[in-house]
Amino acid sequence: MTPEYALDPAFITGSVALARLPLCDVRLQRDVRYPWLILIPRVSGARELEDLAASDRGRLMDEVLLAGRVVRAIGDVLGRPVAKLNVAALGNITPQLHVHVVGRRPDDAAWPGPVWGFGGAIDYDPGQAETARTAALRTLEVG
Amino acid sequence: MTPEYALDPAFITGSVALARLPLCDVRLQRDVRYPWLILIPRVSGARELEDLAASDRGRLMDEVLLAGRVVRAIGDVLGRPVAKLNVAALGNITPQLHVHVVGRRPDDAAWPGPVWGFGGAIDYDPGQAETARTAALRTLEVG
Repeated sequence: MTPEYALDPAFITGSVALARLPLCDVRLQRDVRYPWLILIPRVSGARELEDLAASDRGRLMDEVLLAGRVVRAIGDVLGRPVAKLNVAALGNITPQLHVHVVGRRPDDAAWPGPVWGFGGAIDYDPGQAETARTAALRTLEVG
Repeated sequence: MTPEYALDPAFITGSVALARLPLCDVRLQRDVRYPWLILIPRVSGARELEDLAASDRGRLMDEVLLAGRVVRAIGDVLGRPVAKLNVAALGNITPQLHVHVVGRRPDDAAWPGPVWGFGGAIDYDPGQAETARTAALRTLEVG
C-alpha cells in the first residue's frame, strides 16, 4: 500500500498555500524580497525528479512554466518586474521533492548569487500579500 | 534567419566538454568538490525554459535524468556516492540557458547550502579526471 501524500511541515512555516494544480501544490514563499513559488508534486515518497513517472515529469515541466508566469505577474504588480527566472530542485534541507521558481532582478538582495540561505526572509505586509495573491490567482486561472 | 547556436565562452573556463546529447551539450564542471554536470541546450538565444519548444522541454527533462545517473556514477567511482541531486536553471551570471545537475552529500563543502558562489573550485587532478570521464562516458553509453 502506498502511503498517502502529505506535505512536509517544513513548508508550512515559510510559505502559504496558493493553488492546487493537477500535479503540484503551489505555495507562495513568505519573502517579499523575491516573487517565489514552491511547487510540491503530490506524489508520496518522491525525493528526486527520477521518482516521478514520465507523465508526471511532463506535467511538472508544464507547471514550472506556469509558475514562471505567476512569478512574473507578482513582480509586475509589486512594481519589480522579473529579469531572470531561477528554477531549482534542491531538497538538501527538506528532502520531499519540490521545485523553487524565483523571479530575480539585478537589484535584488542576493543577485547574482542564489537566494537559498541568503539573509533572512522579509514577510509580505498584508496589502502586498493581497496584491500578490490576486495577481497570482488571476494568472493561474488564465493558465 | 535564426543565428547559429554558440556556446557562451564563460562555460569554457570552468568546465570541459563531455558529450553531445540530442538536445544538450554536456560539460563536466572542473570542481572535484562535487560531481557536477552542466547541460546546455543547443537552441540559439534560449535563456529561459519557456524559450524551448515543448518537445525540447521533454528532451531536456530526459537529459537531466540521464545527467543525474552520470553524476551518481562519478560520485561512486570517486568513492563519494551521491546522497541528493541538485538540479537548477539559474543563469544570473551567464544567461544562456543551462541546467546544473550536482551530486551532493552531507559531508560536502557547501552542504546544506547551494554550491553556486560557495568558495573556490578545486580542479580534478589528471587521474581523477580520467576516472570521472570514463565513468561518465560509460553511463552515457548505456543511456
